[in-house]
Amino acid sequence: MKRHLQVELERIKKRILLIAGMAEESVQKAVRALKSRDMNLAKEIIAGDQTINEMEVEIEEECLKILALHQPVAVDLRFIVAVIKINNDLERVGDMAVNIAERVLIVAKPRPVFLSFDFDEMARKVERMLKMSLDSLVNGDVDMAYKVGLMDDEVDALNQRCYDLVKEALQREPDRANRFINLLLIARHLERVADHATNIAEEVIYMIEGEIHRHKDEVFE
Amino acid sequence: MKRHLQVELERIKKRILLIAGMAEESVQKAVRALKSRDMNLAKEIIAGDQTINEMEVEIEEECLKILALHQPVAVDLRFIVAVIKINNDLERVGDMAVNIAERVLIVAKPRPVFLSFDFDEMARKVERMLKMSLDSLVNGDVDMAYKVGLMDDEVDALNQRCYDLVKEALQREPDRANRFINLLLIARHLERVADHATNIAEEVIYMIEGEIHRHKDEVFE
Repeated sequence: MKRHLQVELERIKKRILLIAGMAEESVQKAVRALKSRDMNLAKEIIAGDQTINEMEVEIEEECLKILALHQPVAVDLRFIVAVIKINNDLERVGDMAVNIAERVLIVAKPRPVFLSFDFDEMARKVERMLKMSLDSLVNGDVDMAYKVGLMDDEVDALNQRCYDLVKEALQREPDRANRFINLLLIARHLERVADHATNIAEEVIYMIEGEIHRHKDEVFE
Repeated sequence: MKRHLQVELERIKKRILLIAGMAEESVQKAVRALKSRDMNLAKEIIAGDQTINEMEVEIEEECLKILALHQPVAVDLRFIVAVIKINNDLERVGDMAVNIAERVLIVAKPRPVFLSFDFDEMARKVERMLKMSLDSLVNGDVDMAYKVGLMDDEVDALNQRCYDLVKEALQREPDRANRFINLLLIARHLERVADHATNIAEEVIYMIEGEIHRHKDEVFE
């Protein structure tokens, strides 16, 4: 029985990496669609979200089965509960990609607006956070998990910068408020992806250290 | 053993209602602070979030203990997993109240801006959704849970209305973009509270019907 549980846990690790990869790719595509104002790519992302949603459901079902059949305790129990929550975060990362894609459909209309904000830079940081948070889960690497929390501040700063640029742009071109607000909201969606990565990292720290760091102010505030 | 588990489940039900009540009250206060531009109340909300965070940690710890000690199966297992996820949603509702309060500190500065949007109406709807989602959990009332999903559309419509009003306002008073965008973001925070209520209701449906309705498009899209 004990060995069988370990096999199941390895299997679930692979599955969570799979959904993470899908969510990550979806965000990458969304930012690419923004950059090239590519409406077809945006539509593809929106259609593809269904697969991520189904995958989330399957992973949660598997976790419930493992809990019921193997009744894990201690570190294994914490791992399964962490996976259930992380799975949920990843599904919402997929939703953020959809939200970005929907806004791309608005900002990609003729007569583009210009904002000297580097969405690529922000997206790269956010993607790195997501990757690191998942690596920390799979490798049980608590140091890496802590680093994710520190990077969240950098993303917040970029979000603030986008906000300032949009504010200026609105004063310059108030009649194009719609487009600019949509660009601002895209930055906020990226920031929420970073928040999910931070949640994942906090789950990993909690899982490894066996005590809750989520609400301690030392590192993550 | 069996009976003891039922006692634990009742206990956890009471605890989740307690944290829900706290999160709900925090949102109510935030909207009151907005209405009366009350900076002190806003600061009180920000300071009070720590209690909600601690409560979340305690509830999750209890759930893990129940899983380890009682090894529940079937409906009891689904209930505990639902509580773990709902607990997480409620903590984030508390965070939304903090976000609103932080924006109140910005919009409450002298020279207020005016927007003919009824934040109270939106907040009342959102609070009702939250209450109904929790009632559906505690009473195992799947019909009520479905109603929450339907109300989410009404909140989305209000959010859209706020967006349109802000867009107009920005064209009228572009130099006050900062205030108006903050009002818009307050509406978005309320909308996210509604999203959390919808998540909770979906968890309840999943728990009761034993199959996943979260990603079926019939009711919730």
